[in-house]
Amino acid sequence: MREVEVKALLVDPYQNTPVVLLKDFNSDKVVPVWIGNAEATAIAIALQEKEFPRPLTHDLLQTMVQTLGGELDMVVIDNIQDATYYATIFLRDPNGNVFEVDARPSDSIAIALRMSTPIYISEEVFANSAVDMPDTTGDEQDREKFRVFVENDMNLINFKKYIGNSPANPNETS
Amino acid sequence: MREVEVKALLVDPYQNTPVVLLKDFNSDKVVPVWIGNAEATAIAIALQEKEFPRPLTHDLLQTMVQTLGGELDMVVIDNIQDATYYATIFLRDPNGNVFEVDARPSDSIAIALRMSTPIYISEEVFANSAVDMPDTTGDEQDREKFRVFVENDMNLINFKKYIGNSPANPNETS
Repeated sequence: MREVEVKALLVDPYQNTPVVLLKDFNSDKVVPVWIGNAEATAIAIALQEKEFPRPLTHDLLQTMVQTLGGELDMVVIDNIQDATYYATIFLRDPNGNVFEVDARPSDSIAIALRMSTPIYISEEVFANSAVDMPDTTGDEQDREKFRVFVENDMNLINFKKYIGNSPANPNETS
Repeated sequence: MREVEVKALLVDPYQNTPVVLLKDFNSDKVVPVWIGNAEATAIAIALQEKEFPRPLTHDLLQTMVQTLGGELDMVVIDNIQDATYYATIFLRDPNGNVFEVDARPSDSIAIALRMSTPIYISEEVFANSAVDMPDTTGDEQDREKFRVFVENDMNLINFKKYIGNSPANPNETS
């Protein structure tokens, strides 16, 4: 398994669909995951450490899990089938029992960011889906452009020209 | 408190915003609550008893709560302030302790429908927000039209002409 971090939340301008960019801690490779609008909002709010006046659905999920004494050990994006990514949330109850809960990657990431839970990708999914980070191949100007693009711009971005094609189907909500 | 049921999920054509219609069990009054698109989808799926190929966020919430041995005693829409409704979820842990969790009505309803949890509205909110069901005042033809409208049509509906105005602000996501 590879631990990854949420490097950016972008919008694929060709499909007008949000994309989460998960970067491998130990290389310059990234895995793009296409997600739904509501989940993108939930992830964006967590990334920006914003707080809404009212709890959003993932905030409520966090509160209810913590109220019941639950903790998340990790979330793992562990399968891709028919262009849809699958994830498993490892949920620990107050007695130390760990349960594997089937989830979409988008929900898993939205919760992991809120609960400071590590995010992993299985080697198999990584091998199938990872692409090079563009700043390892471009010249200095390209690198700079990409840095700004991933760190500052949470809005509509010309994403595909940077990462090229990917096995994930943009029409699927992961 | 008044127990209510989700009588319909409609779309306010003037604001293009989903509205949940909560009907008092013991009268013909209804309380309309304007909600967000994602929560409306979550409620519609529960009402239609459809199952998605992948768990949606509220399905995941249900699974995680149940995995931790939690149960919902009830959800109560117990406040309205600045045109936003507030709700409380009464969450019971495996030891029988009950915790009050602050939530939006839309999330509360989406979860309550999944977990067969009773939904209540406080007397104060009810007094401020309830409107007559149109089929108690119209003639036979009107009644029939409304019956069809609430039971069959989950899509874009001319809602306001039936229920008139309401204190809730359609621009707020409850």
